[in-house]
Amino acid sequence: MIDVGIIGATGYAGEELIEILLRHPEVRIKYLAAKIEKASPIDEIFPKFKNKIDVVCKPFNLRSALSKSKLLFLALPHTVSLKIVPKLLKSNIRIIDLSADYRLKNIKTYEKFYQAKHKDGKNLKSAVYGLPEIYRNKIKKAKLIANPGCYPTAAILSLAPLLACGEINQEEIFIDAKSGATGAGRRAEMKYFFSEINEDIFAYKINMHQHMPEINQELSKLATAPVEVTFVPHMLSVNRGILETIYVKQDKKLKLENKKLIALYKNFYKKEPFVRIKPEGESVHIKDVAHTNFCDISITSFPKQDLVIIVTAIDNLGKGAAGQAVQNMNIMMGFPEQMSLA
Amino acid sequence: MIDVGIIGATGYAGEELIEILLRHPEVRIKYLAAKIEKASPIDEIFPKFKNKIDVVCKPFNLRSALSKSKLLFLALPHTVSLKIVPKLLKSNIRIIDLSADYRLKNIKTYEKFYQAKHKDGKNLKSAVYGLPEIYRNKIKKAKLIANPGCYPTAAILSLAPLLACGEINQEEIFIDAKSGATGAGRRAEMKYFFSEINEDIFAYKINMHQHMPEINQELSKLATAPVEVTFVPHMLSVNRGILETIYVKQDKKLKLENKKLIALYKNFYKKEPFVRIKPEGESVHIKDVAHTNFCDISITSFPKQDLVIIVTAIDNLGKGAAGQAVQNMNIMMGFPEQMSLA
Amino acid sequence: MIDVGIIGATGYAGEELIEILLRHPEVRIKYLAAKIEKASPIDEIFPKFKNKIDVVCKPFNLRSALSKSKLLFLALPHTVSLKIVPKLLKSNIRIIDLSADYRLKNIKTYEKFYQAKHKDGKNLKSAVYGLPEIYRNKIKKAKLIANPGCYPTAAILSLAPLLACGEINQEEIFIDAKSGATGAGRRAEMKYFFSEINEDIFAYKINMHQHMPEINQELSKLATAPVEVTFVPHMLSVNRGILETIYVKQDKKLKLENKKLIALYKNFYKKEPFVRIKPEGESVHIKDVAHTNFCDISITSFPKQDLVIIVTAIDNLGKGAAGQAVQNMNIMMGFPEQMSLA
Amino acid sequence: MIDVGIIGATGYAGEELIEILLRHPEVRIKYLAAKIEKASPIDEIFPKFKNKIDVVCKPFNLRSALSKSKLLFLALPHTVSLKIVPKLLKSNIRIIDLSADYRLKNIKTYEKFYQAKHKDGKNLKSAVYGLPEIYRNKIKKAKLIANPGCYPTAAILSLAPLLACGEINQEEIFIDAKSGATGAGRRAEMKYFFSEINEDIFAYKINMHQHMPEINQELSKLATAPVEVTFVPHMLSVNRGILETIYVKQDKKLKLENKKLIALYKNFYKKEPFVRIKPEGESVHIKDVAHTNFCDISITSFPKQDLVIIVTAIDNLGKGAAGQAVQNMNIMMGFPEQMSLA
Repeated sequence: MIDVGIIGATGYAGEELIEILLRHPEVRIKYLAAKIEKASPIDEIFPKFKNKIDVVCKPFNLRSALSKSKLLFLALPHTVSLKIVPKLLKSNIRIIDLSADYRLKNIKTYEKFYQAKHKDGKNLKSAVYGLPEIYRNKIKKAKLIANPGCYPTAAILSLAPLLACGEINQEEIFIDAKSGATGAGRRAEMKYFFSEINEDIFAYKINMHQHMPEINQELSKLATAPVEVTFVPHMLSVNRGILETIYVKQDKKLKLENKKLIALYKNFYKKEPFVRIKPEGESVHIKDVAHTNFCDISITSFPKQDLVIIVTAIDNLGKGAAGQAVQNMNIMMGFPEQMSLA
Repeated sequence: MIDVGIIGATGYAGEELIEILLRHPEVRIKYLAAKIEKASPIDEIFPKFKNKIDVVCKPFNLRSALSKSKLLFLALPHTVSLKIVPKLLKSNIRIIDLSADYRLKNIKTYEKFYQAKHKDGKNLKSAVYGLPEIYRNKIKKAKLIANPGCYPTAAILSLAPLLACGEINQEEIFIDAKSGATGAGRRAEMKYFFSEINEDIFAYKINMHQHMPEINQELSKLATAPVEVTFVPHMLSVNRGILETIYVKQDKKLKLENKKLIALYKNFYKKEPFVRIKPEGESVHIKDVAHTNFCDISITSFPKQDLVIIVTAIDNLGKGAAGQAVQNMNIMMGFPEQMSLA
Repeated sequence: MIDVGIIGATGYAGEELIEILLRHPEVRIKYLAAKIEKASPIDEIFPKFKNKIDVVCKPFNLRSALSKSKLLFLALPHTVSLKIVPKLLKSNIRIIDLSADYRLKNIKTYEKFYQAKHKDGKNLKSAVYGLPEIYRNKIKKAKLIANPGCYPTAAILSLAPLLACGEINQEEIFIDAKSGATGAGRRAEMKYFFSEINEDIFAYKINMHQHMPEINQELSKLATAPVEVTFVPHMLSVNRGILETIYVKQDKKLKLENKKLIALYKNFYKKEPFVRIKPEGESVHIKDVAHTNFCDISITSFPKQDLVIIVTAIDNLGKGAAGQAVQNMNIMMGFPEQMSLA
Repeated sequence: MIDVGIIGATGYAGEELIEILLRHPEVRIKYLAAKIEKASPIDEIFPKFKNKIDVVCKPFNLRSALSKSKLLFLALPHTVSLKIVPKLLKSNIRIIDLSADYRLKNIKTYEKFYQAKHKDGKNLKSAVYGLPEIYRNKIKKAKLIANPGCYPTAAILSLAPLLACGEINQEEIFIDAKSGATGAGRRAEMKYFFSEINEDIFAYKINMHQHMPEINQELSKLATAPVEVTFVPHMLSVNRGILETIYVKQDKKLKLENKKLIALYKNFYKKEPFVRIKPEGESVHIKDVAHTNFCDISITSFPKQDLVIIVTAIDNLGKGAAGQAVQNMNIMMGFPEQMSLA
């Protein structure tokens, strides 16, 4: 049984972390912090947690955070983690950072896409990208986990098997991504008002979203040459879920047809508890992964056109954020990896 | 052909006014004002109006408003109309005010429910409550129309026929009202964020909503004794529409059964183009009145229990706001009452 | 650890039962039956269960059902349970029936509201109404549980404390109920098509819904005189959740004001893990109880008008069906009552 | 003033046709037919039309159809038009067929994708593809219009300007299409039940949708070589609207940057009342075209990667079906093209 804390407990990812951790038999939530005006019981901030947790959420205080937790989740807006991680890591705590601050190994790329200075190159270097399906061994011993972004999680898991065997044209990867509105975070901007989002869909940050360099960085490591994807995210009028429809060109020599391609994926993920490969012809649905840590993937091959279409679904708050963070914690702490994760 | 203006053009009611007036063959929109930082073409603020209107929306200016319009719609937050109506009325303009500022004849009630001083008793006195089905003749000649609130419109039209013939217990009227989210106005508050409202319903301002005294004022005029309703509004996860389910007790002497009661309603509204009485057993749906000026009413009588249940639907932006405002304009200007109104 | 089965596994309640039972550490799902053409693995019928359960769902077979389960959940359309319960009860199995077939003690009332003959008076007599907050002791030993309807669960829990102390006018209880679309069951009728329900709300079966006599039966037992409520259900364009807004008249002698009334409710439910009474002024939301077994209740008193307004939320598939069924199972089997229930 | 009829008046496209035609000052709806058991006033089938139209909808009868209408809209399921068009065309009527039966000039392709025999090669040959922006002159004189499919309308309008000047790689066009649920038609299948679609998104008929050959046929005519697009449609949990995100590769010699490309599109559509090209950086939204006949297009060029991303929105029931049909009627009849179309 370990004591954990969450800094940034009042955002969507923080709320989901509480939800999951309350089901976890080996964890006690002992510290909750957020940018709030005055300390309030978390079950007043989120009445749904009444009768389930009795912790007061307070403005962040370094000493309290360290004294009350063996492991800290940081569910903060980008650039805020940068300010507190260096201080936290001076003590013997382990950190899972859900922000983007320690994901991009190239500081210039970070500074360009997040429009902020990055002065913690030292911890950036040792931070482990927390995608268990790729980096499980490193995660076990990591002190600082950079929990992957929601879009990148789906994109990387979708493409890793193909890239691993060098079978695709790395210049022609088109990722059409659709996300539920919680993906925008809890921000009181008029454009996210109910009646603005409801009954709508739109594309935004066309081929310039900050998750694109994260996808490129990770896919390039898996490939034989640098990968540069085309990436267009869309906002859906649903609460949660990401669907990515990915168009790739197979290497002309391969021309793997459907069954073989599906077998290749099944084999690649055969030990993975949270990746489910669809049988031929079955559709992927975001509702099937809502409130879970699953990543569902369907693959369809069109050998005549050297074309492969991958459709992948995760819950942006589950495998795309809080679920994956808890999966990382389970690995770091030696708990069963599926513990508390549906 | 007349020139009109809208002050408060960027709220939901203002936007709907533009939508309706663009279809109106006797009206030209010549003036648009709103609380905005800099003047912008209205089709940049609302790209859906591109190719349809070519007017720049500007911060309010008294002289421009008066010089460009023969009739002004005020679609402003409460208390703002109070400040500009007295100035406007010094000139020869006609005004349809969609706010609550000139609806409540009792200044103390206004000040209690809207928490603001009311210093324009003079115009309040002459303002006409713009519910055409009740006050059509006064509306024709009015200089200042207080356009009814959305909830009151549905409530008054639901109960007028029963009250007119003195058949109900005036102390036992329970109005359970449900409104789409545009009813909250365009306000960047976190609680109206998409993911907060979506997949939810909740009651608010239980029996203390500011529309309650408006309902009481108007129903009392129609009744033989003061009416005091019980009123609970709810927020729905839909864009537009109000449904009110109203429970009333019939006078024990009457015990009108269903068919007679429906006939009574049909007769009461027989000349009204926008009130539709449902046949026995047919449900009222908000989707049937969406984007229209209709008010659909179903009545079910349970004579054994002296009980009548009325279910009524309007579009909160249609008959509950902009539609009704245009209906008032049509009456004031001598245009066919249904012109441009579906 | 016990083996359980579900008959009617492919409806919404059956699906939710699987979801909850998969989290239950003392239960193994060993038998799944449904009205299907051919036996299929349940994770093919519901792909979301892939990697989580490996049971084939088959057409119902009495012998298999009995041999594979110590306890059976019946999640069947009304009248179907009537045909199989008598056969099942000849063996030593325990049954939790989610249908209405064993809820109404008056056979004539059942036959009127469900338009079917009821020939199992014997088991009807011994069936226990499975509302733990009222009948916990009887549930412990019951062989056949009639799991309450969704609307009645919310209505009874809302009114029990007031009725228990005889403080309300039993002829004036108005229940305005709103339910998510899963409440209609999985039925391929055009009126439940997405685009018919979406962006709509409507009332149906006005004061003649089959759950009304169930509410009356149970409230009458708690009251000093027969209770006859007014009940109007509405269909919401959300997936899950019931909100009931209830208007009652207090006895004129009492005139309990808010704080005392809330205290009375808190005291009544002080040992109940799943009933949460709201602090004064806080709204009840269906999203706060979604995917849980909670029942949230707010009470507002208006002593001047002898009026009390109660707003109550449950998840129609949780406390209103599958959650409550599992709560009943926990009680029957001596498991901790909250086990696997959030 | 002309008399028109609609065969298939009870589907979504038929309903929308009635909606639009009721606003049309030059048209009288005189005949309504549908596959219904007994004749019923259309305002009983669609209560929203009460007070607006007084026509009885009947089972189809050739003689009535011909005697009551000068122009007929056929809003029928695929293959049904095939059976009645030859009979209708023997008389002097003009037909706008909203089904796919006369769109594909290659009978084998039709038979493959619609899995039905096509025996009306004669009328197929003379049928005009009703996309006014491309075929306006032919439409004027046509007797039989094959009204385009919803997905093809958006796709063709998106790509025509690029193809017209030969600037794209015709083998690399990826169309990621998302449609509201009315696109599936009014069909009582369980998978289209509200709670199945709500809060979900999924891809279907991956690269094998019947609209794909229609897109290929029309784009190939505009291009210098046969076009074969990749096409993946998705089902959205909204009522209406199509958004297509299209990825194309520019010819390497061209490398047109953003402003020039936008100018090219603006010029191509400069006389078109219903095509709106977005300024640089502005997003296309389906809510901006809902209930209209507009087609909104945004273009973003990435010359370094020879990449162009086009995002296009139409209302699937507007420009994608009934709106376009009325636009075709206006052209055929010599009415102003925008008449009754927002």
